[in-house]
Amino acid sequence: MDTRNLTLLTDFYEITMMQGYFLSGYADKQVVFDLFYRENPVNSGYAITAGLSQVIEYIKNLKFSEEDITYLASLNVFRPEFLKYLGNFKFRGEIYAIPEGTVVFPQEPLVRVRAALPEAQLIETALLNIINHQSLIATKAARVVHAAEGNTVLEFGLRRAQSPDAGVYGARAAVIGGCAATSNVLCGKLFNIPVRGTHAHSWVMTFPDELSAFRAYMDIYPNSALLLVDTYNTLKSGVPNAIKVFNEMKEKGLPLKNYGIRLDSGDLAYLSKMAREMLDLAGFTDATITASSDLDEILIQSLKGQGAKITSWGVGTNLITSKDWPAFGGVYKLACEFDDTGLEIPKIKLSNNPVKITNPGYKKIFRLYDSETNKIKADLIALEGETINPEEDLTIFNPVMTWKKMTLKAGKYRVRELLAPVFINGECVYDDPPALEIQAVCKREMETLWDEYKRFVNPHLMPVDLSQKLYDLKQKMLREHGKIGVHET
Amino acid sequence: MDTRNLTLLTDFYEITMMQGYFLSGYADKQVVFDLFYRENPVNSGYAITAGLSQVIEYIKNLKFSEEDITYLASLNVFRPEFLKYLGNFKFRGEIYAIPEGTVVFPQEPLVRVRAALPEAQLIETALLNIINHQSLIATKAARVVHAAEGNTVLEFGLRRAQSPDAGVYGARAAVIGGCAATSNVLCGKLFNIPVRGTHAHSWVMTFPDELSAFRAYMDIYPNSALLLVDTYNTLKSGVPNAIKVFNEMKEKGLPLKNYGIRLDSGDLAYLSKMAREMLDLAGFTDATITASSDLDEILIQSLKGQGAKITSWGVGTNLITSKDWPAFGGVYKLACEFDDTGLEIPKIKLSNNPVKITNPGYKKIFRLYDSETNKIKADLIALEGETINPEEDLTIFNPVMTWKKMTLKAGKYRVRELLAPVFINGECVYDDPPALEIQAVCKREMETLWDEYKRFVNPHLMPVDLSQKLYDLKQKMLREHGKIGVHET
Repeated sequence: MDTRNLTLLTDFYEITMMQGYFLSGYADKQVVFDLFYRENPVNSGYAITAGLSQVIEYIKNLKFSEEDITYLASLNVFRPEFLKYLGNFKFRGEIYAIPEGTVVFPQEPLVRVRAALPEAQLIETALLNIINHQSLIATKAARVVHAAEGNTVLEFGLRRAQSPDAGVYGARAAVIGGCAATSNVLCGKLFNIPVRGTHAHSWVMTFPDELSAFRAYMDIYPNSALLLVDTYNTLKSGVPNAIKVFNEMKEKGLPLKNYGIRLDSGDLAYLSKMAREMLDLAGFTDATITASSDLDEILIQSLKGQGAKITSWGVGTNLITSKDWPAFGGVYKLACEFDDTGLEIPKIKLSNNPVKITNPGYKKIFRLYDSETNKIKADLIALEGETINPEEDLTIFNPVMTWKKMTLKAGKYRVRELLAPVFINGECVYDDPPALEIQAVCKREMETLWDEYKRFVNPHLMPVDLSQKLYDLKQKMLREHGKIGVHET
Repeated sequence: MDTRNLTLLTDFYEITMMQGYFLSGYADKQVVFDLFYRENPVNSGYAITAGLSQVIEYIKNLKFSEEDITYLASLNVFRPEFLKYLGNFKFRGEIYAIPEGTVVFPQEPLVRVRAALPEAQLIETALLNIINHQSLIATKAARVVHAAEGNTVLEFGLRRAQSPDAGVYGARAAVIGGCAATSNVLCGKLFNIPVRGTHAHSWVMTFPDELSAFRAYMDIYPNSALLLVDTYNTLKSGVPNAIKVFNEMKEKGLPLKNYGIRLDSGDLAYLSKMAREMLDLAGFTDATITASSDLDEILIQSLKGQGAKITSWGVGTNLITSKDWPAFGGVYKLACEFDDTGLEIPKIKLSNNPVKITNPGYKKIFRLYDSETNKIKADLIALEGETINPEEDLTIFNPVMTWKKMTLKAGKYRVRELLAPVFINGECVYDDPPALEIQAVCKREMETLWDEYKRFVNPHLMPVDLSQKLYDLKQKMLREHGKIGVHET
């Protein structure tokens, strides 16, 4: 799946513009595009980056096959010399990106592409598609996992995902965001992620009665029997039958491992409390209670608030589609170009809406941590050449309400640059970690946020400021509004 | 892409249950599962089926590869004899389905699978994934196209789709639902669907000024130049520059074909009316006005209500994710099994919520049309052996409020069976039409609904009744509630 050639996974206008640049003498013009977003998804105080690994595979496999060229030729829009150019096309540029699993905020370049204009233009659509999707699901998962307060969260959404890929890469992103496992076997195989599951109602309905269904399941899976107890009547039939089967194991002197029940309907707070009592009374205090049924972070928080005795949460539709916020609004905007002498010419896109005004220039991001708590104090977007000396005081300011300032005292803060090199001169230089390692990164990242930033509704918002130099450049370009390179929508 | 092996695209519990059935002597038990949904998506009065073509490819390619078996073996859950069984696994069953592009309603089996229990169980997840996704997007597209009242609708959502597949198969579904073309080149290639596009703001920002950018574009694409006019100022700069370039074509005696402008920001009603006036005054009455910018069916209807002069609608995020309703709630439920003698044993799943009680038995669907208007009067779910003679009166009744009856007069109605054979004994017998033919089917299907069923909010709901025989069977099984085969959640 990872080695699919997705070269044509692009908007048609990217290819028509490429031909236009090619024919207008801009085939070698060096430009920089930033991929960033303007608003945290799901009303969150942050987002979690994901998808870089698939971007790397995509870039590595970029190649117009003969079949692709034949198809494009059939559209009667492209000239032979351009099709020949496509036949030799290769990404030769530079890509920097924020590693997967990182906590990020609006306006920050998650991916920065520096390349010849046609190369940078072609990859826009696929980069946005991949990063938008996976960052959305990773963010949603981080919220759900935060709500579960240390309980296991399982990704169970494949049947409602928006296509096979959405199931597979969505589950990968969910695991990055903190899910312990997925039900999706293909995802498990591709990314070496634990797979988990229980059984369906149809299992119980296939046997003559519930007890024999449970007995058969325990017989076959003595080390992982999670019995679905709501097929007939949860408290009158399901839980008592489960206890009977657990007792039979005990009587046979067989060890009970990773065993428990699953609730899939009814009032999960009430049923879990009653089931816990019944299991405990029977001596099965270590039996787990897994719940599934239209769960999301808000419902989990509410159920926990009512004392639900659930130890493991199976989350489906609401996670795999990020149902209440199903699109991550990443955009890809021209930040600068370079003239023949290599001189940078910054570009800005104006708008009546200040949040839509872009930050010009070839940029990087400094993350500023409190040295003592290791919590993030602020992020600072700066121009590529800038440095910060943490042995000196640093005063930063809000780029809109400039009177809002914060001074970080020398020695009291730590600086980290977020963008890491991924491709240099078209060669991948990035050591792409496996999904479970990224999950560990994400867990540590979440610990760099105070809980106030993780509130589900109306969270505290992280300052994302501009360096003085970037601020001055932007102001100068805003004053020159109307001249070349300024874009208003 | 279509020949990917998605055999492991399933929930882990499907495979553990398969092993359980295999070890419990149920490997050859014949069963029937129905794939249906309980509520129309997007508050719609109907849904549009899509995805069958990908289901067919999936079933044809079902095969556990050696690599798959090695992976499953590594999980230490599956026994050698079962892994050997998987190595020889093939779908040998029967599948009936409602053809793609058909108008459908809740409770109707969209896909009916009759197969050995492990075969029917394995394919549950992928069938749901594919049908849920594509039917969702086809339904959303049908709404958007209905709102556009004959204007062209273009699918522009790839960058916001939930993964590459979601972009490709979502665009296919959108075209089935009525979109004239997509921006997605890979989708265009795979499904022979027209691809379309204009250019981006970055095109204009790359040239020294807007006029030279437009001139260069027109020069290269004289037969398809849609100029994006909002880069600097729509009415003061973009439209006048576009008119200048159109005039230059006229002065050179060159024909203007498929030409026009695109608006991507600002108030689309106001701007389109002003732009239309300017274009008309300059003599370019046939120049098209394409709009894009967070469009959906509600906004399109509202813009048209305010007299917007838009001829073509580019719809992105809200269509490709079905943003206001991002999951189609298809489920897959056991309807009956067959004993060793071939006798059918119907199964029912009970619930406190009447809409969640399943319809038992091996079933089919009759669609009843008014002979004169060719509009749908009602659908009738019946048992497989039943027939209807349209030369006789037919009285049908609401299966919950049974006093609500309707009599169709002999000769005044037409009957059509919706389910068509797709696989028989594991062999595909279906003639899978290309996407554009399915689009034509869907267009005719939409004409079989009165406008009242197509209202975006609170539409009229189509009666989906049960035949007397199916109703009686269901009532009998409800009375026997608590006995084997009855399932309550």
